[in-house]
Amino acid sequence: MARPRVVIVGAGFGGLRAARVLRSAPVEVLLLDRRNYHLFQPLLYQVATAGLSPTDIAYPVRAIFRRQGNVRFRMTRVEGVAWERREVLTDHGPLRYDYLILGVGARTNFRGSDRIARHGFGLKDLDDAVRIRNHVLRRLEEAAIPGASAEPSGWLTFAIVGGGPTGVEMAGALSELVRVALRKDFRGLADRPVRIVLLEAAERILPAMPADLSRAAARSLTRKGVEVLVGRQVADYDGRALSLADGTCMPARTLIWTAGVDAAALTRELGARLGPQGRVAVRPTLQLPGRDEVYVIGDAAYLEHEGAPLPMMAPVAMQMGAAAAQNIRRSLRGEPLEAFRYRDPGSLATIGRHSAVAYVHGLKFRGFSAWAVWLVVHLIRLIGFRNRLVVLINWAWDYVLYERAVRLITPE
Amino acid sequence: MARPRVVIVGAGFGGLRAARVLRSAPVEVLLLDRRNYHLFQPLLYQVATAGLSPTDIAYPVRAIFRRQGNVRFRMTRVEGVAWERREVLTDHGPLRYDYLILGVGARTNFRGSDRIARHGFGLKDLDDAVRIRNHVLRRLEEAAIPGASAEPSGWLTFAIVGGGPTGVEMAGALSELVRVALRKDFRGLADRPVRIVLLEAAERILPAMPADLSRAAARSLTRKGVEVLVGRQVADYDGRALSLADGTCMPARTLIWTAGVDAAALTRELGARLGPQGRVAVRPTLQLPGRDEVYVIGDAAYLEHEGAPLPMMAPVAMQMGAAAAQNIRRSLRGEPLEAFRYRDPGSLATIGRHSAVAYVHGLKFRGFSAWAVWLVVHLIRLIGFRNRLVVLINWAWDYVLYERAVRLITPE
Repeated sequence: MARPRVVIVGAGFGGLRAARVLRSAPVEVLLLDRRNYHLFQPLLYQVATAGLSPTDIAYPVRAIFRRQGNVRFRMTRVEGVAWERREVLTDHGPLRYDYLILGVGARTNFRGSDRIARHGFGLKDLDDAVRIRNHVLRRLEEAAIPGASAEPSGWLTFAIVGGGPTGVEMAGALSELVRVALRKDFRGLADRPVRIVLLEAAERILPAMPADLSRAAARSLTRKGVEVLVGRQVADYDGRALSLADGTCMPARTLIWTAGVDAAALTRELGARLGPQGRVAVRPTLQLPGRDEVYVIGDAAYLEHEGAPLPMMAPVAMQMGAAAAQNIRRSLRGEPLEAFRYRDPGSLATIGRHSAVAYVHGLKFRGFSAWAVWLVVHLIRLIGFRNRLVVLINWAWDYVLYERAVRLITPE
Repeated sequence: MARPRVVIVGAGFGGLRAARVLRSAPVEVLLLDRRNYHLFQPLLYQVATAGLSPTDIAYPVRAIFRRQGNVRFRMTRVEGVAWERREVLTDHGPLRYDYLILGVGARTNFRGSDRIARHGFGLKDLDDAVRIRNHVLRRLEEAAIPGASAEPSGWLTFAIVGGGPTGVEMAGALSELVRVALRKDFRGLADRPVRIVLLEAAERILPAMPADLSRAAARSLTRKGVEVLVGRQVADYDGRALSLADGTCMPARTLIWTAGVDAAALTRELGARLGPQGRVAVRPTLQLPGRDEVYVIGDAAYLEHEGAPLPMMAPVAMQMGAAAAQNIRRSLRGEPLEAFRYRDPGSLATIGRHSAVAYVHGLKFRGFSAWAVWLVVHLIRLIGFRNRLVVLINWAWDYVLYERAVRLITPE
């Protein structure tokens, strides 16, 4: 008799973990992704600021599962699900499943502003990161052309919208890139007005952290030359200047938007009940209501924990992937399913070199110690020994020499 | 009094060497390139076959000259030269020079076939290499979709046109990539008909080498699963099949063209007398006839040596760059100029793992010893310590595990 087939859509943190947990289960796993690699998203901002190469944070899915005999991978785009026939619809035709795990992830949400989407940058995939890197370096190269002293205002103003961990990390790293690059390689630009501005709509950055850590992070950013503006909502952007909700205007030739994510578009095609941000409302067992054989995990799933929605973060996705896979194993054995229980691993945000804030099990870290914690956590999580080694070399180099590894402006 | 200004167009091997030789000269050097990085072209085929990441073979020009005070860099596209006014015309306006060194390099010459240019791949810049990598990996991913067994013929046939060193290296590395990848990561494909075909119009591959080394290289390629076809001229390609001059037809969904290069398009804009392949005919001093202050070097220059044109290779470009810079120094001191004297460093071609052929000062090497020579030469030449280290790690990894580092299909 053929083994039941578990189809996993998405090779993100949740999908990979689910496939791993099914390693010894009596199932056949079919993992689908539109890309052939897993992306280590938490370090995307390092690619965007030329600290790491795309290769350092992406790993081919087939290589990850080479030694797991019951997993097959297929690079394909999923376009929908036919619930009654139990088929996933792909651009290469339908694929039957007995169990389905949807871990389709998230995309940048520009809050409905086509103009911000057109002129600004998101930071969700490799393409975004490489485009930001090319754009920032091109601004510097163009500013270095003499005669550009009559350059339009905001040429070297870089606005980062959104004061969550991604925005904070991006602002810190970008400030170091631009200021270090200016000092070392663009000496003629040293007297140019460079601004790195972090805008947050709420009254403080890192709102998920205790208030004193928010303050510490803001001080650390300020020391690194970042202007931290809170209580400022960005309403519009035309590529030259951004308009704030209070009517003021700020010239900036670069806008990086980290102020919101949405579940991936596919969730709208499922006919399922959606929660906020297009996330699919799931039962505590992570099953889709009315579809016992379907699980939704990670950024695409909406579930509350202690009265608040679970955050759209890698640790949640990984725990959900493991929980969904465990529930499939239970159901194969005829055992009752278990509700998902989230174990908060704490939160961390790094602010360039030597500085970070961390809040772990009620303990607060800041400065160098938090940065060391962050470094170790991310290195351990990175998949693939060689990648880890190369990332470590890049970082060590950067640390010792204040050098940037990957300052290439590549064709797009 | 202002120092004379030497403008160098092109940050390839020749341009970099010229700028270095002018280090202690009483001149101001302005180096121009349309890219912000120097590309180590001899290893492009490694990027195309997923052995190295683009970052490993590209290095920011500004970082190279950070410690050389008399060099400034500008990223700009050169569109022509106004000889009388002594100005280089760029997309950022004109730039005055006292001396000019043109090292604008070469581009793929598809022998006038628009169809081959449209459906085939060149291998001259990073973009080409990344497009080949993505294309090859995509062919494999698509072949892995069940039902594709009714796939069109030639789906997994990879034709490399041109049996020079680039074609030989590409064919050997591609065969290893595809066969190793098939065996390890695409197990279901093991019984599929895979063909790697190297086509050469002359009667033997590596025509610049002694005949016995050509034979050794062909045998080595055959052992690696490459079909070596000599005396075959490719006349046309429509993306599905290639037509040979003898009227036969060969299905192939991939064609990589290494069968010819031309000097960069800019040479046609100069109004200078051109030699074969659009190369600018220069005097033995490397000066442009009638323009004593202008030097042309590298692939863009046409000069004969012992009755034959100098090859379009990195060693020639580097030696010419040094010679042009020395002649500028002589002319500043009022000394007579010297004719360029080429010292042939020998030629080398690697054929995948553990195998190469080399012809150095009349000595012939083949097999593992030639490969070891090749490895050392290329590592030493690579610019930048960190790059060298990462390249070494990648190679060691590849060597030990038969693993491919960079199998990402990235957005283009």
